[in-house]
Amino acid sequence: MRILGIDPGLQTTGFGVVDVDGHALAYVASGTIRTTHLPLGDLPARIKVLYDGVREVVERYAPDAATVEIVFVNVNPQSTLLLGQARGACITALVSRDLPVAEYTALQMKKAVVGHGRAAKSQVQEMVRRLLHLPGLPGTDAADALGLAITHAHAGQAMGRLAQAASLRRRQHAMYKGGRSY
Amino acid sequence: MRILGIDPGLQTTGFGVVDVDGHALAYVASGTIRTTHLPLGDLPARIKVLYDGVREVVERYAPDAATVEIVFVNVNPQSTLLLGQARGACITALVSRDLPVAEYTALQMKKAVVGHGRAAKSQVQEMVRRLLHLPGLPGTDAADALGLAITHAHAGQAMGRLAQAASLRRRQHAMYKGGRSY
Repeated sequence: MRILGIDPGLQTTGFGVVDVDGHALAYVASGTIRTTHLPLGDLPARIKVLYDGVREVVERYAPDAATVEIVFVNVNPQSTLLLGQARGACITALVSRDLPVAEYTALQMKKAVVGHGRAAKSQVQEMVRRLLHLPGLPGTDAADALGLAITHAHAGQAMGRLAQAASLRRRQHAMYKGGRSY
Repeated sequence: MRILGIDPGLQTTGFGVVDVDGHALAYVASGTIRTTHLPLGDLPARIKVLYDGVREVVERYAPDAATVEIVFVNVNPQSTLLLGQARGACITALVSRDLPVAEYTALQMKKAVVGHGRAAKSQVQEMVRRLLHLPGLPGTDAADALGLAITHAHAGQAMGRLAQAASLRRRQHAMYKGGRSY
């Protein structure tokens, strides 16, 4: 299964692609989509760059699932609005290709990757480097995006374990019932 | 020239299509795209409905230009974030079809349609009905969207007048210069 993680931002959007095979994780690609060359006020143009960028990543790497960081309300309400629009553009690019989109907070990502929610950006970069056996530290936006993909991989494994446990309970329950009825 | 106006919202997005020929305005279509049938928390699904809805309107009516209301920061920052994402999805649907997107505030729209910025929703509905010779009042979201299209039509006429005036000034200037040099 191939997972695409997106760390959305109006100026810089990070992306990271990871392959998951059981417990094994493999790095595929990562990078950033930048709109900093465009005028600050030209929101439609910046949204087009984000949309085209995410679509290009989807076309190139053909992920099976995507995950986008849940963004938070900023101190500056105008920044919140701009970030919301950037995130909307990223999600649109994913759902327009019918990709399932999971959402995680930065706290959930840090817990999954580093082990605790208050980890610094540099700790996320270091753990992503180790987990994916990268030769060097990824950039902060790309590290966050790769971290999201890893979080989704872990969540999938947890779901798998839950399903196994439920199946085991069902089998035990069936045996118990069987014991009673025979 | 055919103009599509969009009044973005996560629950209800209004759209309105107007043809402009010089000073003549003609109603083409209007309506709303609703996501209220979807679970409140399923943002990706709601964004997909908005994206698909706006794309469908663009495909059906083939506008030459689009305009999207500039939304404002809400009292509730979480609502601001949700509205931002809905607006991002709408703009994405437009720029993904390479439509030029103009942005106006509700104040600018009310000034252009009703004549003053503090107009009530019902006054916008009534003026839109009159300007487009509609048999009945449009819904509030559709009226806002049609109002935006009318605002863009007026802005285009104003730009046209400015261009004419500039051209006249250039001709006058040329004549004046001509008078001096000959």
